[in-house]
Amino acid sequence: MNRKQGILIIADGLGDRPNLALKGLTPLEAAKTPNLEGLLSSAICGNVHPVKAGIPVGTDVGHIQIFGYDYRKVYTGRGAIEAFSGGIKLKTGDVAFRGNFGTIDENCIVTDRRAGRINEDTNKLAKALNGMILEDGTEVLVNELTEHRVAIVFRGRGLSDKVEGTDPGTAMEGSRLKVSVAKDNREESKKTAKNVNEFMSKANKILGAHEVNKKRKEAGKIEANTVLLRGAGIKTEMKSIFDRYSIKAAVIAGDLTINGIGKMCGMDTFSKEIFTGSYDSDILGKGALAAECIDKGYDWVVVHVKATDLAGHDNLPFKKVEIIEKIDKMIGYISTKVDMSKTYISITGDHSTPCEVRDHSGDPVPTLISGPDLRKDGIEKIGESYFAKGALQNLNANDIFRIQMDLLGFVKKVGA
Amino acid sequence: MNRKQGILIIADGLGDRPNLALKGLTPLEAAKTPNLEGLLSSAICGNVHPVKAGIPVGTDVGHIQIFGYDYRKVYTGRGAIEAFSGGIKLKTGDVAFRGNFGTIDENCIVTDRRAGRINEDTNKLAKALNGMILEDGTEVLVNELTEHRVAIVFRGRGLSDKVEGTDPGTAMEGSRLKVSVAKDNREESKKTAKNVNEFMSKANKILGAHEVNKKRKEAGKIEANTVLLRGAGIKTEMKSIFDRYSIKAAVIAGDLTINGIGKMCGMDTFSKEIFTGSYDSDILGKGALAAECIDKGYDWVVVHVKATDLAGHDNLPFKKVEIIEKIDKMIGYISTKVDMSKTYISITGDHSTPCEVRDHSGDPVPTLISGPDLRKDGIEKIGESYFAKGALQNLNANDIFRIQMDLLGFVKKVGA
Repeated sequence: MNRKQGILIIADGLGDRPNLALKGLTPLEAAKTPNLEGLLSSAICGNVHPVKAGIPVGTDVGHIQIFGYDYRKVYTGRGAIEAFSGGIKLKTGDVAFRGNFGTIDENCIVTDRRAGRINEDTNKLAKALNGMILEDGTEVLVNELTEHRVAIVFRGRGLSDKVEGTDPGTAMEGSRLKVSVAKDNREESKKTAKNVNEFMSKANKILGAHEVNKKRKEAGKIEANTVLLRGAGIKTEMKSIFDRYSIKAAVIAGDLTINGIGKMCGMDTFSKEIFTGSYDSDILGKGALAAECIDKGYDWVVVHVKATDLAGHDNLPFKKVEIIEKIDKMIGYISTKVDMSKTYISITGDHSTPCEVRDHSGDPVPTLISGPDLRKDGIEKIGESYFAKGALQNLNANDIFRIQMDLLGFVKKVGA
Repeated sequence: MNRKQGILIIADGLGDRPNLALKGLTPLEAAKTPNLEGLLSSAICGNVHPVKAGIPVGTDVGHIQIFGYDYRKVYTGRGAIEAFSGGIKLKTGDVAFRGNFGTIDENCIVTDRRAGRINEDTNKLAKALNGMILEDGTEVLVNELTEHRVAIVFRGRGLSDKVEGTDPGTAMEGSRLKVSVAKDNREESKKTAKNVNEFMSKANKILGAHEVNKKRKEAGKIEANTVLLRGAGIKTEMKSIFDRYSIKAAVIAGDLTINGIGKMCGMDTFSKEIFTGSYDSDILGKGALAAECIDKGYDWVVVHVKATDLAGHDNLPFKKVEIIEKIDKMIGYISTKVDMSKTYISITGDHSTPCEVRDHSGDPVPTLISGPDLRKDGIEKIGESYFAKGALQNLNANDIFRIQMDLLGFVKKVGA
């Protein structure tokens, strides 16, 4: 067999619903996508469930499913992924949280969950907290992530992930900072809750008095004087993609979380400063890097674009159309750089983020797999409505992964 | 997010096969359904498996699946549901049967399994049996249901549901009344079989001598001088729909069994005398009540129509067409009474009952979900053949439930 390679583009939150502003079309249907349309002549399409019909998923679970894992077996909580993103290698017994630097007033009322989306000097704030030793000897590891985000890991004896965080939650700005409590009655849960609260009270003092915050105050910026914890997770035992399929895989993303998941799954990760995980990310640049990775010999190259999801959350259908058109241009660019007679190009999303819902929904995700020797399924236009009649309709993200691996020749025959 | 509500119409036994009398169309394809067709402009359709492809189900299992439960985890036998329908609250250890009042001759040959479809004074007959104490102290609770139907519960120590009933079965009129036997070798099974036989012999005597039967004889009607038991079931532990999804749900049905299942799942149930569960049921009246329930604030309102199934069992394709056209009129009526910009209207069946089969088959069930912000899948006509190309094709009844709950905003995201 001729050796083939594959590129999968993940447009975060790609799926949508008919939008009145787009004359009843979805953003994907409204976008001009000549390059995607060009792939249809040898492609199979469908709307695909991240897990099962009607189950909305977060970005983390969505990607774990796309990478071929059953999240029910390997997902312990977002905190575990953020530890990976922050370069902290979890040990058995560690409890990891995702966190935000945030702002509280003198009465512990959260006035900003993201400290004005602080995006400078968070490394200094993290460093000031990192290595804190609590009364019972538990150590706390703290590493900054993108912008206001931070990874926090508790390392000690007899800890549990069955504790609430200290983040009052998205809809709860203006609430009093939550006190962490045990979710069950076990001693280790109570002990961990106590540890979290001790860390919080010490962290608030350290951050409140920190040089960075003094400077922010002087500059008229709001302080980053607390960390809000949520999504406790523990080390998960998962085989790397290489161990499962013997493939050499790469992930290209601006979003640190996606890179974290990629690392967790044993893939090489690539990023650049100009891959911001935001609207201004260099999408074409990601395509160029993908072509380079193919050239370097990677079997499977994943390109992640976050901005489609942001546009969904922000209810900006025209912005979502614009991003999809940029992705289409990237596909056009890739097709000039790789040998299309030996390369499968696919596109999917981790979940749907319909603009009018402004959140993830359980709607299945438009998905296309194209390649030189693929059966075509006769779908003639790009979009959720058209894909409903496609060959991949109602499959799930694990199926789509397996199909790609099989096309690349990495799935072993069962039986003889 | 805008709050939305949903109505699900269950046309019992809706699915069918091409029928020569209908020029090779199915009843659903042959019926004039302008209101259903009107929903297609924002709808997804498909033929849906109650459980899995090729598995025919009973009404009880079909509805349990439609209400989002895996029957393999919660279904113990029809008797348990009929106890609910009859208002008997099962305790752990109880064994419940569904039953018919029937007719036997002096040699215990069953001459009519339904005592001429007796539909009066069954409350008096049930009362005469209710509270019977057997030799070993086991108590028997008996409550009448619709027409010839009755719920029978054995309450005592060391009982088992692993026993045969005493009903010789649908095709077995003219056979001898069955003697209950244990299905396994355990003592409690043997004991329960003995209890059932003791109950039968006492019940036959009591009924044979009952005033109601004397009067029936005088009036030239056949006697209801036995009860035929089948479908042993025990108490099941199931979370209510409210506990699972925090929704307020209502069931509108004429059929007591459907109301029993609704109650078992924690839904409010509504019925009226004119909802007969038969051909003469007031279908339009059910639609009016559904609109009232939406007005009262129910999140999800289920309307059940039995007559489509009856027409299948009776091999009356034109009757089935007529009932489907009545359901279509009900949908038209509902659409004038509720705010269609905030209401999802869906239709499905619990199983297929093809006229020529005269019984439930494993054919998937035509299903449609419509609503203000739904993706359309481009299906342009109503019917099994057209729906095969729809977005819901080959999903199962649990999926369809979850999709509705997700559209209403009641499914929690997994992951973050």
